[in-house]
Amino acid sequence: MSDTFEASRKRSDDIRADLPINPQNYTMLTGDRPTGRLHLGHYFGSILNRVALQNLGVTTYVLIADYQVITDRDTTANIQDNVYNMVMDYLAAGIDPARTPIFAHSAVPEANQLMLPFLSLVSEAELQRNPTVKAEQEASGHALTGLLLTYPVHQACDILFCKGNIVPVGKDQLPHIELTRLIARRFNERYGAVFPEPEGVLSDAIEIPGLDGRKMSKSYGNSIMLGATPEETAKLIKKSQTDSERTITFDRENRPGVSALLTTAALCTGRTEEDIAAEIGEAGAGALKRYVTESVNDYLEPHRARRAQYECDLDYVRDVLNEGNRRMSQIARETLAEVREAMGMVY
Amino acid sequence: MSDTFEASRKRSDDIRADLPINPQNYTMLTGDRPTGRLHLGHYFGSILNRVALQNLGVTTYVLIADYQVITDRDTTANIQDNVYNMVMDYLAAGIDPARTPIFAHSAVPEANQLMLPFLSLVSEAELQRNPTVKAEQEASGHALTGLLLTYPVHQACDILFCKGNIVPVGKDQLPHIELTRLIARRFNERYGAVFPEPEGVLSDAIEIPGLDGRKMSKSYGNSIMLGATPEETAKLIKKSQTDSERTITFDRENRPGVSALLTTAALCTGRTEEDIAAEIGEAGAGALKRYVTESVNDYLEPHRARRAQYECDLDYVRDVLNEGNRRMSQIARETLAEVREAMGMVY
Repeated sequence: MSDTFEASRKRSDDIRADLPINPQNYTMLTGDRPTGRLHLGHYFGSILNRVALQNLGVTTYVLIADYQVITDRDTTANIQDNVYNMVMDYLAAGIDPARTPIFAHSAVPEANQLMLPFLSLVSEAELQRNPTVKAEQEASGHALTGLLLTYPVHQACDILFCKGNIVPVGKDQLPHIELTRLIARRFNERYGAVFPEPEGVLSDAIEIPGLDGRKMSKSYGNSIMLGATPEETAKLIKKSQTDSERTITFDRENRPGVSALLTTAALCTGRTEEDIAAEIGEAGAGALKRYVTESVNDYLEPHRARRAQYECDLDYVRDVLNEGNRRMSQIARETLAEVREAMGMVY
Repeated sequence: MSDTFEASRKRSDDIRADLPINPQNYTMLTGDRPTGRLHLGHYFGSILNRVALQNLGVTTYVLIADYQVITDRDTTANIQDNVYNMVMDYLAAGIDPARTPIFAHSAVPEANQLMLPFLSLVSEAELQRNPTVKAEQEASGHALTGLLLTYPVHQACDILFCKGNIVPVGKDQLPHIELTRLIARRFNERYGAVFPEPEGVLSDAIEIPGLDGRKMSKSYGNSIMLGATPEETAKLIKKSQTDSERTITFDRENRPGVSALLTTAALCTGRTEEDIAAEIGEAGAGALKRYVTESVNDYLEPHRARRAQYECDLDYVRDVLNEGNRRMSQIARETLAEVREAMGMVY
């Protein structure tokens, strides 16, 4: 990849400055794999940002990447339930389906078809070179599947079929954006201008810690689920690991458990970790946990109330998804028609 | 791959014996890449066989594999013209579009979508291990593209979306059929029985020689095109390379040019090469070439006459293709619905 991190960072900063001024110039694709329920890490790390950009007037599409569930696992168990719950969390968080279609990979064949021309534009060596694919394969403990090897190309299909020109990313996903840019550039050079060259928009949000101080991740069991009950949330926080020192202080490096609790409360209250630590002080971990529990449950109360309404109206949830699928299929058909025209595959 | 050549050969022989008895039990997918015009090698090597099986009552689908054009090349130049000409040759050869849909890859997104679940069922190591992919990549002199690496998976989509259970193949394509069987088996085991495990049906036809004795191939410039004029055919045969020995004899190893001419005439007349050689004898290469020219042009005359009619009625050619695309899209949608159901991706 020819691009440097500094160049990507610079373009990302320019776009972030321009977004509130010219939101109409941007189309953003974001999404999640429906491998489980959404948690506070997703919420603070990306969903709030999507809602904010939607509300600024950026064209926003939210993808439920159901085919990406099987990149590194042998089962699609519970996928329907995960998808419905994901839609409920999006809606409860403020994704407005009238403005922002929510759709699933598997329902838009015309977008997936772009895999074929796009796979022809990258070499096997370029696929092998992607550091994130390698890291994910190692983390999965699973043989490298054809789908995991090629998923950055599939991601390029996702972004390009709807002419996305910005994608919120973490630093480790920049190689994917670079590959998408490369595919767009090669396609346009070879067949004619059809696709934008999208930019990754880097977040400066901190990585949301799970209750053990590691990254919040379902597979670590350290995650506060958006859809959990207040009691489940209290129980999870209560059994989180702190340390033997009584006085509460914020020290991410040496006191990961205590500091993760402080950060969680800080995110939910808008206070600083230091401020909260000073207030709890000698009252110790028990008092801190009670404060965190209250902060989280208060903060999520309106989200959970809205969510509960959707749980009672699954027909509406399905309608939202079907309508999103329908709208995105229309966009995909139009793009595929342009692709066919450019490639001369019109019969 | 667990299968041995002898086991494949045995199953192939059994099917060939059963085809005339129980044609209704078989669904055959065949096709060609529209990289150029069809020639006598295609005609004797596969098209006649497809027509025969169609006429026996085997369910037959003919695929114009337009996306496979870009596995190893950077351009789709002339693809529309190649596709139309391919349809004309199929029709002229006896493919009956009322019984046998003729369709193009690019027009059936629901079939192509199977790439995603199927790529998840094979490992990168299994993709790399395919000897035919390696050979094709070396022959192309082109970097191994992602599409060439994964095209056996795409071929599995072609065969399985229409529940093909037989595929006419040469020995070098058996690894592809093995991969298709593996994908079908793994899908069925993991998600439930949806796909047949197709069998490769080996041909005992000789490899059709081009005019220089090598395999007939457009890229060697040694091919007699079905759609060429009698004059073009005469000219091509006239400039073909023979040797300095006057007496015509059939000796494939030592006299490749003369022998290729004899085989061409033999295929077109139903006589043996030895018989023709004995008749020409001392009259030499000039007489042989005149005889071959006459044999080929006589043989192809009815084909070319039918073809000329289609050339004057491109609307009909387009209708045939559009109707084939429509019918196969319907089949693909039905299969994809079964796949979604089996994978639980129903929302």
